[in-house]
Amino acid sequence: MPLWKIYHPKDAFSPPDKKELSERITRLYPVLPKFYVGIVFQEVDKDSFFVGGEPADRFVRIWVDHIARTFANDEIKARWIGMVEEALAPFVRDRGLDWEYHIDETPFDLWSIQGLRPPPPNSEHEKRWIAENKPSPY
Amino acid sequence: MPLWKIYHPKDAFSPPDKKELSERITRLYPVLPKFYVGIVFQEVDKDSFFVGGEPADRFVRIWVDHIARTFANDEIKARWIGMVEEALAPFVRDRGLDWEYHIDETPFDLWSIQGLRPPPPNSEHEKRWIAENKPSPY
Amino acid sequence: MPLWKIYHPKDAFSPPDKKELSERITRLYPVLPKFYVGIVFQEVDKDSFFVGGEPADRFVRIWVDHIARTFANDEIKARWIGMVEEALAPFVRDRGLDWEYHIDETPFDLWSIQGLRPPPPNSEHEKRWIAENKPSPY
Repeated sequence: MPLWKIYHPKDAFSPPDKKELSERITRLYPVLPKFYVGIVFQEVDKDSFFVGGEPADRFVRIWVDHIARTFANDEIKARWIGMVEEALAPFVRDRGLDWEYHIDETPFDLWSIQGLRPPPPNSEHEKRWIAENKPSPY
Repeated sequence: MPLWKIYHPKDAFSPPDKKELSERITRLYPVLPKFYVGIVFQEVDKDSFFVGGEPADRFVRIWVDHIARTFANDEIKARWIGMVEEALAPFVRDRGLDWEYHIDETPFDLWSIQGLRPPPPNSEHEKRWIAENKPSPY
Repeated sequence: MPLWKIYHPKDAFSPPDKKELSERITRLYPVLPKFYVGIVFQEVDKDSFFVGGEPADRFVRIWVDHIARTFANDEIKARWIGMVEEALAPFVRDRGLDWEYHIDETPFDLWSIQGLRPPPPNSEHEKRWIAENKPSPY
């Protein structure tokens, strides 16, 4: 479900950085099957990346689609946003990069993995998907 | 309207593959002008593509925005999702690739083609756009 | 907030073109802090870009996420869409390129810049962010 798309300056992240950051992002979703968490890193050249009309060469722009869950209330939402900041901090804030992200929520029933409709949240089937870390028919 | 964005491993699809897959996707929308269907393929290096914190080199991740139509009911939705699976199968499942897609629905009135607002669904003007396979003033 | 993603043919836009177009897009949002406006240009090879199942080598496809504001009414929306066309015209229409764009609206409270939740629309804090053209705690 969550699909993270990370636009970043050339050479901002090494391959091990990307691996570690992707693990940190995956851990933001402890209630989901790990394999739900997809992440795409994309380098953007300075002359193709703009903020406020100016070239951006220190900017990390992330957008996320959430599908499997929506937030139950504002408190949970705010707490989770704080966890995202912690997860990202060593790779953006602590390196002096600028960063921004936003999340959209998209329809659960327009989503498919390996030809299967993901099971309902917190269902027995979802628990099996979590345990096996792969999709299976149900 | 529908915009398909297909992230895929390097060399997963040849140019003829991409052409044929784009034709199969276009045929999923028989009620729309063909030129509404936009598709972007994007190769992602193994060290920039992650699923559950692990590098993904056999994974095809698709996200789609639907604009021109929403689904009238759950039955139509489920049947259409099944048609998507059939359209994709020869290029993902049958090649042993993993795949996932999700669809978002975005506002009809925040959409523009060639400086024109697309005509209402099933209108005479839309029929002309279908017949001519290009936008024209109305 | 607004994030513009511009898919375009190889060599459609020079670096100065991209700079000027990004300034024109930024000016579409006079009520927002300039630094809210993020733009990513992405070249797409002809064999990875399809419209209606046919290769697209003269096509500019733009998608936009709006976060900071939604449109108050249809009149404002239509007028603003007209302004977008004017902003884009010298770089698409006047060059004989085809173009299409659509805009989605995503949740204000799932958005974060530099670890800060952006201030409410038209607030004193937002005015300061506009004046200083950078985020600051409040």
